Amino acid sequence: MKSKLLAVAMCGVASSAAIAGPIEYSLNSSAAAVQQYAPLFQKELDRSRSFVDQMMEAGVVVPIPKDPGGGYTHEQHKQNFKIIYQGGQLYKLTGEQKYADYVRDILLAYADLYPTLGEHPARKNSQSSGRIFWQVLNDAMWMVDSIQGYEAIRDSLSEADRKNIDDNVFRKAAAFLSTGSAVTFNKIHNHATWATAGVGMTGYVLGDKELVDVALLGLDKSGKTGFLRQSELLFSPDGYYTEGPYYQRFALKPFIVFAGAIEKNDPSRKIFEHRNGILLKALRTTIQLTYDGYFFPFNDAIRDKSLKTDELYHGVAVAYSKTRDPGLLSIAQWQGRTVLTDDGMMVANDLAAGKASPFSFQSLLLSDGPEGKQGAVAIMRKGDGMTGQALVAKNSSQGMGHGHFDKLSWQYYDNGYEIVSDYGAARFLNIEAKQGGRYLPENESWAKQSIAHNSLVVDEKSHFNGDRRAADKLAPEQLYFTNEMGSQISTAKMTGAYPGVEFTRTLALLDVEGLGQPLVADIMRVDAEGDYAYDLPLHYNGHIMRVGFDVKSNVAGRPVLGESNGYQHIWVDGTGKPTSADNGFVTWIKDDRFYTARWVPQVGSETILAESGANDPDFNLRREQMLVQRVTSGKDIVFASILEAHGRYDGAAERTTASDSQVKTIQHVRHGGADLLLIETLAGAKSVLAISYDQDKNKKHTAAIDGQTISWTGFAAHLRLGGE
Amino acid sequence: MKSKLLAVAMCGVASSAAIAGPIEYSLNSSAAAVQQYAPLFQKELDRSRSFVDQMMEAGVVVPIPKDPGGGYTHEQHKQNFKIIYQGGQLYKLTGEQKYADYVRDILLAYADLYPTLGEHPARKNSQSSGRIFWQVLNDAMWMVDSIQGYEAIRDSLSEADRKNIDDNVFRKAAAFLSTGSAVTFNKIHNHATWATAGVGMTGYVLGDKELVDVALLGLDKSGKTGFLRQSELLFSPDGYYTEGPYYQRFALKPFIVFAGAIEKNDPSRKIFEHRNGILLKALRTTIQLTYDGYFFPFNDAIRDKSLKTDELYHGVAVAYSKTRDPGLLSIAQWQGRTVLTDDGMMVANDLAAGKASPFSFQSLLLSDGPEGKQGAVAIMRKGDGMTGQALVAKNSSQGMGHGHFDKLSWQYYDNGYEIVSDYGAARFLNIEAKQGGRYLPENESWAKQSIAHNSLVVDEKSHFNGDRRAADKLAPEQLYFTNEMGSQISTAKMTGAYPGVEFTRTLALLDVEGLGQPLVADIMRVDAEGDYAYDLPLHYNGHIMRVGFDVKSNVAGRPVLGESNGYQHIWVDGTGKPTSADNGFVTWIKDDRFYTARWVPQVGSETILAESGANDPDFNLRREQMLVQRVTSGKDIVFASILEAHGRYDGAAERTTASDSQVKTIQHVRHGGADLLLIETLAGAKSVLAISYDQDKNKKHTAAIDGQTISWTGFAAHLRLGGE
Repeated sequence: MKSKLLAVAMCGVASSAAIAGPIEYSLNSSAAAVQQYAPLFQKELDRSRSFVDQMMEAGVVVPIPKDPGGGYTHEQHKQNFKIIYQGGQLYKLTGEQKYADYVRDILLAYADLYPTLGEHPARKNSQSSGRIFWQVLNDAMWMVDSIQGYEAIRDSLSEADRKNIDDNVFRKAAAFLSTGSAVTFNKIHNHATWATAGVGMTGYVLGDKELVDVALLGLDKSGKTGFLRQSELLFSPDGYYTEGPYYQRFALKPFIVFAGAIEKNDPSRKIFEHRNGILLKALRTTIQLTYDGYFFPFNDAIRDKSLKTDELYHGVAVAYSKTRDPGLLSIAQWQGRTVLTDDGMMVANDLAAGKASPFSFQSLLLSDGPEGKQGAVAIMRKGDGMTGQALVAKNSSQGMGHGHFDKLSWQYYDNGYEIVSDYGAARFLNIEAKQGGRYLPENESWAKQSIAHNSLVVDEKSHFNGDRRAADKLAPEQLYFTNEMGSQISTAKMTGAYPGVEFTRTLALLDVEGLGQPLVADIMRVDAEGDYAYDLPLHYNGHIMRVGFDVKSNVAGRPVLGESNGYQHIWVDGTGKPTSADNGFVTWIKDDRFYTARWVPQVGSETILAESGANDPDFNLRREQMLVQRVTSGKDIVFASILEAHGRYDGAAERTTASDSQVKTIQHVRHGGADLLLIETLAGAKSVLAISYDQDKNKKHTAAIDGQTISWTGFAAHLRLGGE
Repeated sequence: MKSKLLAVAMCGVASSAAIAGPIEYSLNSSAAAVQQYAPLFQKELDRSRSFVDQMMEAGVVVPIPKDPGGGYTHEQHKQNFKIIYQGGQLYKLTGEQKYADYVRDILLAYADLYPTLGEHPARKNSQSSGRIFWQVLNDAMWMVDSIQGYEAIRDSLSEADRKNIDDNVFRKAAAFLSTGSAVTFNKIHNHATWATAGVGMTGYVLGDKELVDVALLGLDKSGKTGFLRQSELLFSPDGYYTEGPYYQRFALKPFIVFAGAIEKNDPSRKIFEHRNGILLKALRTTIQLTYDGYFFPFNDAIRDKSLKTDELYHGVAVAYSKTRDPGLLSIAQWQGRTVLTDDGMMVANDLAAGKASPFSFQSLLLSDGPEGKQGAVAIMRKGDGMTGQALVAKNSSQGMGHGHFDKLSWQYYDNGYEIVSDYGAARFLNIEAKQGGRYLPENESWAKQSIAHNSLVVDEKSHFNGDRRAADKLAPEQLYFTNEMGSQISTAKMTGAYPGVEFTRTLALLDVEGLGQPLVADIMRVDAEGDYAYDLPLHYNGHIMRVGFDVKSNVAGRPVLGESNGYQHIWVDGTGKPTSADNGFVTWIKDDRFYTARWVPQVGSETILAESGANDPDFNLRREQMLVQRVTSGKDIVFASILEAHGRYDGAAERTTASDSQVKTIQHVRHGGADLLLIETLAGAKSVLAISYDQDKNKKHTAAIDGQTISWTGFAAHLRLGGE
């Protein structure tokens, strides 16, 4: 059976004359002449050639498995599946026999080795053990790439070689990954996606329907597990992956790649329409979860992970092929890379033909949970996705083992920078010196803890007392969201993170008359059954310019803020007690813009200016500053704060404007069940963010503030007040 | 007399048809039609128009002087001279009467105001007082721009207006700046350059030879002071300005602009050939004192100052006009700006015509002092000026009031970053909240102190005990310099910074076999008459990955390193005692590259890992890390260290290579009077940096090291050793 896997590569024949206009590439499956492709594709081809040619010089290196991640045999087998994949694509594109021979020889070596393999020497346990790698996940990743490379050369092999590799490599590996790793295979989990993808794609290549069926429907073929069920349970209806953007990006590849194979082999399945087009939705959502090309780093995440990553080169190519969205071409352009498939060639061609248009980064509410009932991530944007504003309200569920204890936390991006930040993970990926590149102890002791986030912390304990299984059970409730221009508002409530405490947070991105940049408003309402101590941290990026209130400074050895739950990692620079929102502020500068955080101080509260980095003997933590509003005792508290971007510092022209806040003051008023935040600028403009918390969108509300009566309809509104 | 000031602006008339090829711009002094200029010039024109048109709406605003720097009247008068200058250029270019009228009206307002002015209310003292501004320097800056703007419109005025402005503004101001500010005018100092430039350029415009003569030759016209003498004494023969790059950049403008006026009005003077072409040399040297476009921030300097600055827009335009060096066009391209003069138009035209070529950033020895006998700055480069390497040895003199106590300090740039850094100044220019934008107390207590630099510190005191007048008297002696490819070496000696202590430092940028990046070698030899305590700090940029030796960490409240001379600003993270160069190292990561500092520990020495920021209640300091080699007691000491860049961290591809040092060890041997540094890589390559300190370039030296005999000729050499 002539299989049609992921992509039948097009061999384009183009004129070798000087290029005057756009190039037309024609389909021609056998071309040995020198090809010329659109630049992005050509670059990829050259890169692969260079890589595979170099590897060819080293010959066939298929060592007996021995080492864990990062070690020699692990890295070599990783290298091998890259070689097999790229060598296969190169053979399809160029027809050069040396590539087919090299891939064949490597697979023949695996055919000798694989049947002899048992559990991996460096395994963690039997259940998760791979054969080639210490964990079965990596065996699955090996499979996904290798089967694609194999498919490209299979028809060119001798009968004997084909049978040898079919039987001794892929059938055996498929058996191991499916029935031989039943626990993993039947999970609803990213590892299972890789396993089902590898097995299913092998099924298509070998013409083995059984393998395809178990991959799609689970070992018992009931559909309760398997690839299709995973696509229904691992993404919310908005295509959001519960572990967060970093892992969403990682989980995407097997979904996208296997779906491409299903589409080619069994188009009647209409896989890309499955569950309302969930797979393409997931790809788009992955892109939406970025700023300036970098993923929002919440939950466990490496902060330097951007759209420039293999999973998204594949993702963009497949999605473009299905949708022809010219915005995806802009993403490809930013990435500067594509994949050596016909989808990648299409991207490269259309990009070269000038068809790209800017990707539409939007304000979105992304629900979490398979039915979208486990909280949400709200993204409120203004301007473009690289230099504009993005306010991210993280109202999602725990996100399993890689989740952090950060209910209702937030981030703010502006002017190309992360201004209010999420720490990400304490991990230095692939760096031997940092415990072999694994998650560090400080990931548990700092990065996951509530105080390390812009979250409410009660009695200096983390949410759910740091118990992730308890945390997995309860998600926030998104109460309201609007992306109305100039008044974008998100409200969510969390119950159960602390016994007896419920907190409701509204984050809003508001245009305020006379202010050059939008303003962030943050109203955190706490309803408690008893008296508790509260901390509300703000982790910011910049150099302090002005503090509105007197600070008692610890200028020599700074004390540490606490003993556990992350508090042991905080040095206290100073404390103060602002008396009103007039002096309750801190101004900092980041590059050429100023920021002022301002809040209404609680009676009896204090403000802590602090920095992370204490109790870190191995220098595993970054040292970053924060300010904390602290209420030592209170029952029902409202934290009312704003973040204002203002002014300009022009180092070249040596001119500075508006280096101090343009806001005069803010006021918080509770009126019945409603919260009102009054904002008054130095220029005299007054406005109110009014939140009724009432879900009846037609109900009218009135309230008195600043000597005026205001009225609005529905859950929330941002209203201008009459002038003085 | 029809004056020909700086630039007779060309009024180009270009075809308004679609542009098919390069545009020819013709000289035509009266053109009211819409002009089209080369893009850089057009952009400048549009920018100026936009600015002046906007100012015109505000009308003529010439307030009675009252405020100091940053205050209202100060800023308004600054704005005015910008308006006058740009308005004048716009009139010359466009012929639009509204510009001439506006500039005239502003100057008529000054004609009313100026004669009434006495000493400025916010002056520091009589001697430095301006009339319009709190300090006479600013009055001079006002004059330089305003006279150029005036020149552009003068011929268009009525007889009465001309006489009014001539007499009541410029003659009076010239008298004030010259005889009325004799002390400043007669200085050999940047303030005097501005004053003589203002007065001299006024002389040309008014046809007043007396003013020109005193400007060029000093009030007594002897030539012992005045502009010409300043050009002989303020720059070294290599065009280096003793206060350092930040102030060199500032001092450049009046030199360049007045020289342009002299050239136009009195070409027989051949001002650009004066003193071997010192002015153009100074301009080029200013550019050479950058990395990635940013000035080396040593001495008092604001770190964000780059070539994108008004002084260098002028400088590049004038220098290009004289030299037609296509490298200067690349600089203009990076700047993205030019000036509205015929020189600026030439730059814009030639840039648009594709004539730019990369600017040649070089390895240079820049002598300091009027005769080049007060030390030097050695720049050792490899690769390009934006992403390559630059090793800067700061062996220059004190540099007067803005100098730092940093004899023989160094910096290292690589991969677009400052890896071994110079702090610059503790100052937030023009930011009201930071003491009005002035130099902060921490500039004295931290930024100038020796421990804040990569300098030798003896007995925890700064060089010259922090006495700048003592410091001004003694400069280092540059002993040797070679920019030979692969073995660039600089050696300098300092005597007198500490009584009884002489130190000689060799910094070298070496290509070492098998290493992917060049290596920095640092041999600091101390010859002392008694027993002293030594600290040798290294201020680095990056996140610690690995420390080769055990560290006793201060993980909670960190102690402060000392009490004074900058030590009070240092927190101690930990201390350790490496036992050999095998374990005497620290590895850090900056972006995608790793760096290992390695040294031969002295017997009984310890290493301190520390961070700046202690005793800084106002958050005026940045928190940056350092490591310090500390020898508590010793007489003749040699600190032998290297800095190695290695490996790659690829976050996108998730691959890391060579994250640990590729150097096995280093060894220091003293042989007679010579110092030898052996470097051995993990791969087994061995080489020696051998320094004889003997100035006889033909003399042969031999020494024994590593069981071999080596020989070399002259002061220093880098030799490969035979393999194992």
